[in-house]
Amino acid sequence: MQDHGSLPSVLDVHVNVAGRSSVLGKVKSRKARWSVRPSDMSNKTFNPIRAIVDNMKVKPNPNKTMIALSIGELSTLNQEAAFSFCSFLSGYLSSREEVASYYHCPEAPLEAKDVILTSGCSQAIELCLAVLANPGQNILVPRPGFSLYRTLAESMGIEVKLYNLLPEKNWEIDLKQLESLIDEKTVCLIVNNPSNPCGSVFSRRHLQKILAVAARQCVPILADEIYGDMVFSDSKFEPLATLSSKVPILSCGGLAKRWLVPGWRMGWILIHDRRDIFGNEIRDGLTKLSQRILGPCTLVQGALKSILCRTPRVFYHNTLSFLKSNADLCYGALAAIPGLRPIHPSGAMYLMVGIEMEHFPEFENDVEFTEQLVAEQSVHCLPATCFEYPNFFRVVITVPEVMMLEACSRIQEFCEQHYHCAEGSQEECDK
Amino acid sequence: MQDHGSLPSVLDVHVNVAGRSSVLGKVKSRKARWSVRPSDMSNKTFNPIRAIVDNMKVKPNPNKTMIALSIGELSTLNQEAAFSFCSFLSGYLSSREEVASYYHCPEAPLEAKDVILTSGCSQAIELCLAVLANPGQNILVPRPGFSLYRTLAESMGIEVKLYNLLPEKNWEIDLKQLESLIDEKTVCLIVNNPSNPCGSVFSRRHLQKILAVAARQCVPILADEIYGDMVFSDSKFEPLATLSSKVPILSCGGLAKRWLVPGWRMGWILIHDRRDIFGNEIRDGLTKLSQRILGPCTLVQGALKSILCRTPRVFYHNTLSFLKSNADLCYGALAAIPGLRPIHPSGAMYLMVGIEMEHFPEFENDVEFTEQLVAEQSVHCLPATCFEYPNFFRVVITVPEVMMLEACSRIQEFCEQHYHCAEGSQEECDK
Ligand SMILES: Cc1ncc(COP(=O)(O)O)c(C=O)c1O
Ligand SMILES: Cc1ncc(COP(=O)(O)O)c(C=O)c1O
Repeated sequence: MQDHGSLPSVLDVHVNVAGRSSVLGKVKSRKARWSVRPSDMSNKTFNPIRAIVDNMKVKPNPNKTMIALSIGELSTLNQEAAFSFCSFLSGYLSSREEVASYYHCPEAPLEAKDVILTSGCSQAIELCLAVLANPGQNILVPRPGFSLYRTLAESMGIEVKLYNLLPEKNWEIDLKQLESLIDEKTVCLIVNNPSNPCGSVFSRRHLQKILAVAARQCVPILADEIYGDMVFSDSKFEPLATLSSKVPILSCGGLAKRWLVPGWRMGWILIHDRRDIFGNEIRDGLTKLSQRILGPCTLVQGALKSILCRTPRVFYHNTLSFLKSNADLCYGALAAIPGLRPIHPSGAMYLMVGIEMEHFPEFENDVEFTEQLVAEQSVHCLPATCFEYPNFFRVVITVPEVMMLEACSRIQEFCEQHYHCAEGSQEECDK
Repeated sequence: MQDHGSLPSVLDVHVNVAGRSSVLGKVKSRKARWSVRPSDMSNKTFNPIRAIVDNMKVKPNPNKTMIALSIGELSTLNQEAAFSFCSFLSGYLSSREEVASYYHCPEAPLEAKDVILTSGCSQAIELCLAVLANPGQNILVPRPGFSLYRTLAESMGIEVKLYNLLPEKNWEIDLKQLESLIDEKTVCLIVNNPSNPCGSVFSRRHLQKILAVAARQCVPILADEIYGDMVFSDSKFEPLATLSSKVPILSCGGLAKRWLVPGWRMGWILIHDRRDIFGNEIRDGLTKLSQRILGPCTLVQGALKSILCRTPRVFYHNTLSFLKSNADLCYGALAAIPGLRPIHPSGAMYLMVGIEMEHFPEFENDVEFTEQLVAEQSVHCLPATCFEYPNFFRVVITVPEVMMLEACSRIQEFCEQHYHCAEGSQEECDK
């Protein structure tokens, strides 16, 4: 046991918490001050054209109209191209303005300069990780969680530390375990709310507790809020940045989910940094990194204003009531099947189902279970091993109601055919 | 002097070449055998969903229709989304088929499996570098050349070695100097033909010599052929891969230039590997890397067939004759200006102009020259320092003819106002 009587580097945050025995014991704390530095990759990213052109100190002669022989504008050649190109240079700014004003609110103000447009939310996440983390540093990632976090991090040599979501608490974060993972090399906490694969939505209170950990440990947050506002009527989505002015937050989103156009590859990063902890360095880093490979298609940029401002309310409403009704339906059907333990979702488009593996001894794990489900019933669900959460599977609830019902009844048939009483629990089987 | 009588590790390739004194002398050769390995980043890129789903050994029950609860297809929610999503999964293949059949030819056959679609040619280049090079290894890059090569490489920790293009030989490569740069850490030779910023087009003979270097030194080629076929009537574009079956080539291209839609962000990699030197590892690496961030917008993918197959010939013809006439016009005008030395282009959309700096003593360099040109004449050209080639500037020749002429006459006025006789060459000034 380490001596921690007087050492500020050892915090005893995990013991003596009511009702839980802590296996974690003590955690080394980090120096509790903010120091968010751009990565080496960000520092090494240099675009000579931008550097030279942006540093130009002179103004054009006001008596002569400007002639740009500097970039291939193609303006005479092709109307379409001229349009695209303009919207790329200036419309780019106007697209960022659209996103800023869509997400702006008094508690978390946003301007165009706080928005980076990206090729889908995936690239938004990539850029955030690329600007915050060096190889050898680590990030905190939810388990179960969207697999892209690990895929991206590992390809960049960034270590992944998994914090647990608790199914019995509607997939809330195990905050103590989360905090115990943080060390000097922790550069980012990924919070995915609403959650893929869980379909869970965090309460304001829980989000405040997450923010408290980040503030205490001085870890910036990557909030993956791509399912923001995709919550059922009995829950409420709170953008993380509206609940703290202290913790610097990069909020990632996009058109894919709420507006149901995944293929359009339009995403964004919203930079929330009211205490200037990211500062210009992180902003510039994100901008430079986003310019290595120019982002989203201009056709979609051009349509942003209409999509954000003119989508009728009834579109969102219909989407959500369809999803909620499908979620209820699916949950109800699966909850009645012996051997399965679905967790009711509150948003997004997913539902996680626990498999009581002891009742399905034929199958080694969730992968085999879902494989055999395809072979016999032609129903394909992802084994939650994909999300680092064995012995669950994930159901996508976006199929038509009649297909949803058919799928559930096939899953029921499958389970009935393979269910075995667990040893030593005969009663349960008889009932 | 090293003894090289018997040592195969020292090649005497540079001495005694007719008409050139070689300062380079001897070069260490590399082991002359092919060994192209995917990078660590590629090896570390792992997508658990793909791994698990692709490894599924079972087939669905043929008597039951398939119900996929595995990915959010959104099919009932939104027709548009359903369309996008389908074209993302299967149309994706059909888009790759379109590109393959467009570029297929007997000397360099292509199938869908040889095509990777990317977000613009920039991402194509990024993926090629990411799969071929580890930090600390090096790539060969043209000088003058497109600045993105260095930007991308350095952000990934890859060293850049610059080989020279020779303006007096229509920007052909200095092959001896090129070969002298190659060492054990050289993993890729970038050949950009037709060239940005030079507007040059390599002859078949010159391309064959480049291939001979690559074959002798066993260095794979990244052929940036985004301006392929954008050549004026007196030249011919030869895709590099049609001239060698030995050298493995990744050819990068896209819609941006020839089809004049830069903002649509549609690019591709064509994998030419008839001797199986890249093998499955590089192919898989490229696929994995391209799936980290899903590529191009499905709206554009959907339009690919029409763009590639149904663009009327007259569109290409008009583009090229416009570009050629503008090139001639601009070359003629600038060649007549004392102190400037334009190099006639044969393709692409650029023209490089040498500045005889000794005649413009007011300006330190090309950056100051072009800056002052903006201040006085409102004409903006990029200083070729942006392309690592000081004392030149680059002119984009895509503006309307009347603007081109106006720009040239302003450049003339500017040069006349700032031209000074070089010391000791009074005659020249008097003539
Ligand atoms: C939690 C989460 N974040 C990010 C993404 C990526 O979104 P996009 O398709 O815009 O790249 C997804 C897509 O499934 C997701 O589920
Ligand atoms: C030589 C060269 N390669 C690649 C590109 C990038 O093309 P894209 O706009 O498709 O990313 C350009 C764009 O200017 C270029 O000049």
